[in-house]
Amino acid sequence: MTKPIRVALLGCGTVGTQVVRLMAEQSRDLEARVGAPLELVGIAVRRPERHPDVPQDLLTTDAQALIDSDIDVVVEVIGGIDPVQGWLERALEAGTSVVSANKVLIAEAGAALHDIAERSGADLYYEAAVAGAIPILRPLSESLSGDRINRVIGIVNGTTNFILSRMDETGSSFAEALAEATDLGYAEADPTADVDGFDAASKAAILAGLAFHTPVVASDVYREGISNVTAADVASADEMGCTIKLLTICERVGEPGDEAVAVRVHPAMLPRSHPLAGVGDAFNAVFVEADAAGPLMFYGKGAGGAPTASAVLGDLVAAARNKVAHSLGAAVPRYAELPVRPMGKTPTRYHISLDVTDRAGVLAQVAQAFADNGVSISTVRQEGRGSDAKLVIVTHIAPDEALAETVEKLRGSEIVHDVLSVMRVEGKVQ
Amino acid sequence: MTKPIRVALLGCGTVGTQVVRLMAEQSRDLEARVGAPLELVGIAVRRPERHPDVPQDLLTTDAQALIDSDIDVVVEVIGGIDPVQGWLERALEAGTSVVSANKVLIAEAGAALHDIAERSGADLYYEAAVAGAIPILRPLSESLSGDRINRVIGIVNGTTNFILSRMDETGSSFAEALAEATDLGYAEADPTADVDGFDAASKAAILAGLAFHTPVVASDVYREGISNVTAADVASADEMGCTIKLLTICERVGEPGDEAVAVRVHPAMLPRSHPLAGVGDAFNAVFVEADAAGPLMFYGKGAGGAPTASAVLGDLVAAARNKVAHSLGAAVPRYAELPVRPMGKTPTRYHISLDVTDRAGVLAQVAQAFADNGVSISTVRQEGRGSDAKLVIVTHIAPDEALAETVEKLRGSEIVHDVLSVMRVEGKVQ
Repeated sequence: MTKPIRVALLGCGTVGTQVVRLMAEQSRDLEARVGAPLELVGIAVRRPERHPDVPQDLLTTDAQALIDSDIDVVVEVIGGIDPVQGWLERALEAGTSVVSANKVLIAEAGAALHDIAERSGADLYYEAAVAGAIPILRPLSESLSGDRINRVIGIVNGTTNFILSRMDETGSSFAEALAEATDLGYAEADPTADVDGFDAASKAAILAGLAFHTPVVASDVYREGISNVTAADVASADEMGCTIKLLTICERVGEPGDEAVAVRVHPAMLPRSHPLAGVGDAFNAVFVEADAAGPLMFYGKGAGGAPTASAVLGDLVAAARNKVAHSLGAAVPRYAELPVRPMGKTPTRYHISLDVTDRAGVLAQVAQAFADNGVSISTVRQEGRGSDAKLVIVTHIAPDEALAETVEKLRGSEIVHDVLSVMRVEGKVQ
Repeated sequence: MTKPIRVALLGCGTVGTQVVRLMAEQSRDLEARVGAPLELVGIAVRRPERHPDVPQDLLTTDAQALIDSDIDVVVEVIGGIDPVQGWLERALEAGTSVVSANKVLIAEAGAALHDIAERSGADLYYEAAVAGAIPILRPLSESLSGDRINRVIGIVNGTTNFILSRMDETGSSFAEALAEATDLGYAEADPTADVDGFDAASKAAILAGLAFHTPVVASDVYREGISNVTAADVASADEMGCTIKLLTICERVGEPGDEAVAVRVHPAMLPRSHPLAGVGDAFNAVFVEADAAGPLMFYGKGAGGAPTASAVLGDLVAAARNKVAHSLGAAVPRYAELPVRPMGKTPTRYHISLDVTDRAGVLAQVAQAFADNGVSISTVRQEGRGSDAKLVIVTHIAPDEALAETVEKLRGSEIVHDVLSVMRVEGKVQ
């Protein structure tokens, strides 16, 4: 019989439990696909008594000793930086391949971990870290490796997408929709990582790094969450035939010779005709634009134990196959070393709804405020409302700071009674 | 300098021309990703004078001599079985890796070619053979290799999708929509391969083989084209909130212990709410259902020179990387050896519109015809039309032959004046 591939599992929460189940249920299929049996040697957890549903003899509290016990592939589903980073570095240094679902660690230390993996001849895979079950990292780094990717736009956080979908459907406030998400288990007790965009920012860094062959970390990512999105914003979007999504946008910007990458996470109005606009509830989708391939979209479940475990097992099979064949998966070249463009210099478009004094010359004054900042206006809609008027303005593309400064100037203007809604816009809107 | 990877290109039509262009334009990026420069050593074509736009010194009419000139990767974009199969077999036997966009050959001889590749330690990749630019084969065989795929439903032929989209939008006949597709260059002068479903059947065989780890060839695929789809079918579909698509369906059928695969290509009614229903014009999409991952969808351009070349180059980079690393990509295990279930025994559902005599007892007689064949009815809608009535019936799932026999029996019945529309149904309809 072929020598088994020895697997250590670090962590046994929602995802880990499913990994254990699927490894057992599909052991014969996995063996046929790998070319050797997969042997789960141990499961490192902090409190074994909390894990009654997995084989008890596999549980250990000593992750380090488990990693050191002649393991071929370490599967990590704990999350966070410490103490996981040290464990995975030590595993990779010993030539043990690593499969991780840890977006925070990969976004922070992915480049360093890849360096160790490359030096010691180990694989490092983390498909589960971005968009759960959706195969997106392998397509980006392998299928599209002969193409030039220009943009990756994704909905990669299910919690915020659920909240925004509810606000869109019911007209509810952010607080109401968040409460509903918490009740249904879509939002955690402390929802900060999701609603403030930290989770999406980690995923953005990973996507941008692979798409543009350049090192990007989470702190390079401009990040704005959804807690300031109001029912008025949602209504304004609807009037324009748009919906609001928390978008993860990674793009090449600048002219040849002055190329950079811009990576950002923020809510944005998106026309309902855009393929991403129909992605509802806790689903995820990633839209990719490449020179030769054109537009591509990948859609599926972005979270949950079984979907995430599917991605983990796909990586585990790949790492195990390579161990059997004494080969290695594709490296992740970061040769491009493109600089990261700060948000202020990144080209965006704004939608701005203003409550203004309804008298002749007001539009001219407002338009002048845009012109002063070098911002060109795409469309204006003016609606009289008694002594006030409502102005709905969509700009052309301009540096984000010029747009933000224009909004600040308008806020301070005596003719502007209220700024009703300010929201960036993606895609073609009327 | 690292030794270059020597590449031979067989064929230089729409796709080949783009491969040459992209290899030249992106040579520095490709070199960085591969870890060695890619050197295009020669382009084998039948008539060099027809290719004024590629470097003339690379053109040769002697494909065999080119393949034999110490090549690392052969890229084949000619298509068809002869003489290509012999060339690719000889290349693989010599340990030369092969990248092919040839769906006909892979559907017919993929297993044999993989056997040679495995014996001689060469790679065989063909992402471009199915759904153009959409990364679908690598996700199926690698990303989902730890999961159990139950179903793959795709729109993988752009010509027929364009024709059906036009029929749906304008109410035109098949002949009119085909003429429009021909005028616009979406259909070839001889459209048989597309409209009769041969192209989709080849792709179905490739998808099923990878999804179910089982050998499937094009002749295993049940195939029905779109030339019999009428404006009446399209109108009937619309009344049910459906559109008609030429679907490629690969699925596991049967109980454990009696498992099989069913692979079929035929037009079907699909509810407009289904993710595939919105795939218009010449776009392709593939919907995958897996046990743990749940539903996944992949969307993009299914044909055209540049999109297909993107997929070819992705494979070329993978094969070249492996040459540099002296390693091999994942094998394509076909261990499952599941039998292919004939269409008659495959579970399907029908929509049937009948023009019947409008008198008491007719519905009972029609219902009895279904019952006699063991077919259970899901919904019936009855509309009086003067002395006639129209019956619109949607069945529950039954073996296809039981449904087909019921239709035949109804055709011969004296109470049925006319069979207005018969169409299989996928997804949930009312």
